[in-house]
Amino acid sequence: MMQFTVQKDVIYNGLNVVGKAAASRGIQPVLSNVLIETIEDNSLKLCATDLDISIEINIPSIIVKKGSITLPSKKLFEIISKLPSEAVIFNLNEENNLMEIKCGKSKFDIKGISASEFPQIEYPESDEFINIDINPLLKAIKQTTFATATYDTNNVLSGVLFKIKENNLEMAATDGNRLTRVKEKIENKEKKDYSVVIPCRTLKEFAGILSGVEDKTVSITVKNSQILFKLKDRYITSRLIEGQYPAYEQLIPKNYEIKAVAEKNSLNQAIERASTMVNERTNIVKMNFNDNKLKLTADTPDLGDSCDEIEVEYTAEDLNIAFNHKYIQDFLKVVDSDKVVIELNGALAGTLFKPASEDDFLCLIMPVQVN
Amino acid sequence: MMQFTVQKDVIYNGLNVVGKAAASRGIQPVLSNVLIETIEDNSLKLCATDLDISIEINIPSIIVKKGSITLPSKKLFEIISKLPSEAVIFNLNEENNLMEIKCGKSKFDIKGISASEFPQIEYPESDEFINIDINPLLKAIKQTTFATATYDTNNVLSGVLFKIKENNLEMAATDGNRLTRVKEKIENKEKKDYSVVIPCRTLKEFAGILSGVEDKTVSITVKNSQILFKLKDRYITSRLIEGQYPAYEQLIPKNYEIKAVAEKNSLNQAIERASTMVNERTNIVKMNFNDNKLKLTADTPDLGDSCDEIEVEYTAEDLNIAFNHKYIQDFLKVVDSDKVVIELNGALAGTLFKPASEDDFLCLIMPVQVN
Repeated sequence: MMQFTVQKDVIYNGLNVVGKAAASRGIQPVLSNVLIETIEDNSLKLCATDLDISIEINIPSIIVKKGSITLPSKKLFEIISKLPSEAVIFNLNEENNLMEIKCGKSKFDIKGISASEFPQIEYPESDEFINIDINPLLKAIKQTTFATATYDTNNVLSGVLFKIKENNLEMAATDGNRLTRVKEKIENKEKKDYSVVIPCRTLKEFAGILSGVEDKTVSITVKNSQILFKLKDRYITSRLIEGQYPAYEQLIPKNYEIKAVAEKNSLNQAIERASTMVNERTNIVKMNFNDNKLKLTADTPDLGDSCDEIEVEYTAEDLNIAFNHKYIQDFLKVVDSDKVVIELNGALAGTLFKPASEDDFLCLIMPVQVN
Repeated sequence: MMQFTVQKDVIYNGLNVVGKAAASRGIQPVLSNVLIETIEDNSLKLCATDLDISIEINIPSIIVKKGSITLPSKKLFEIISKLPSEAVIFNLNEENNLMEIKCGKSKFDIKGISASEFPQIEYPESDEFINIDINPLLKAIKQTTFATATYDTNNVLSGVLFKIKENNLEMAATDGNRLTRVKEKIENKEKKDYSVVIPCRTLKEFAGILSGVEDKTVSITVKNSQILFKLKDRYITSRLIEGQYPAYEQLIPKNYEIKAVAEKNSLNQAIERASTMVNERTNIVKMNFNDNKLKLTADTPDLGDSCDEIEVEYTAEDLNIAFNHKYIQDFLKVVDSDKVVIELNGALAGTLFKPASEDDFLCLIMPVQVN
């Protein structure tokens, strides 16, 4: 009869981390469950998977008797969240898979499913890992995931290209209308090179499970179309997206004819205001660059029109260009720099948006042809 | 050509107040609009209505040229919300009903509908008002609206009974499963007596439009199946629900056989925990009162069961009773008192829940028969 005691806050945090991988509903009920398994005398493994992503965490616990079981992830989390911050005692009746949970004067019996029905998760060998600093990786995730395509999770465009070559990490995402690319220096002592496409959701979940970790680096490895992110007490594994990622490098203009520099906040606010009158089917905001001024306009028949103006650094010829304003705002949201540089090659050419103070991040946005 | 200037924050707050009455969609586009009308040299009336509820507010403004127009409520609010805290200049082109809105370097043209299409709202005469203190009224609204029926907004049970007789205000609500009743002393100098049924939504909107008002009292009058709440700078009028409100007084037991006293918070937490295992179709939590203890249990086949226990003051015989836990929790949410009194007349009789420190508020909840 499996039996252990764990602090409420510890198992609460653990379930919060792995719960993101549990299936919300599905054909296999066990995929909505979290696997609970004693792994050492005072350690408990929690694991959940929807077969796309698996998350696992080890938490400290007092093990009285070893064992394993799976319990409904959401319901268990709900129970634990309502308990006071005290020790919680778990007692499994293995005959009927009924887990008794006791804390103070509260007692619950929750029906589980045998651990033998839980899918086996395979991990790559540990000698193939490379280590990456977490903070620049998080920033690169934030600066790429927003630009992925959302229509089909098996399409390469719904993932983020993740390329390691020597001491360089390059990440890129595109949905065909805009492209974002980040480069970071890393220490690749292990000399492992990869070029894989990671599902957007995997990167977001990875960023999400970092709360409370003290790790400065994450170990990453790729094997059998799977990627594994390993931290001190937790893992996340995920399928990769198969297929050839588009050769985006050739789309990024090497030279530009015209350049504008704008304050990030005033540009964002001006777009925000002009976009109130945007046609919600097209989201088009028209821009006019002329004489150190950027004028923004939008209109919808039957509703009205809007017009805004900000100061920019711009000394080239009068230029009219139009964009889906959401693409520019998505870019501005992930920029730390106070100023942004806009590199233009005319009204119909892909336009580069860059933070003024960051060299290795750029966003290429295709303009929209109007009238 | 109507023309006026108004401070951004002033019109923002005004639109926020009246916007709640604008129709979100409907057959008559003008009902989604807000009426803007100059009423004095430096005052502007904003008004919106969905024909059920009308809200009106007067705001200070510099009027250059008088006039009136209706503009799309949501879109106008969106525009104003994005402007800096500065003066906003409005200029109406009466030929095409196009309102120009200017603030700093931002300019909008928004298409309106002639004010002549806006429904005329009639107000009762002012000599029929009675004045009620706002704070006790707000408390009574909070303690009744939650118990109204939600199925049909024309049914009297979907409203709150609002009865003034001499210096007493009585409000009551019931959905057939529970009943809540509040009594407040008021100063009814005007000697007007009413007994009307106010739609639940009207009372909630009334509570909602009070932000920022300095009024201590509200003037209320009833006429032609309409109720009017009048504050210094704003009105809300609403239809009343026609029909006979049930004679609920006779349902409230005058005497009780058994009494229990519980701490509000510990009772709420114990219900919260026990209810994790509740059958979501019935929401039934079973209670056992015995020997200064209250035991709570719930179960769902295939999921599991829960059990909790708290100390209560209870010295009568062992009693088993069951409730929809949401009804008890709804009551506990609106109670200020630290302790609640439960007055019982056996397992099948309506049970009274009262705050220990408030005499004039009670909630009658019907138990559920189990097994």
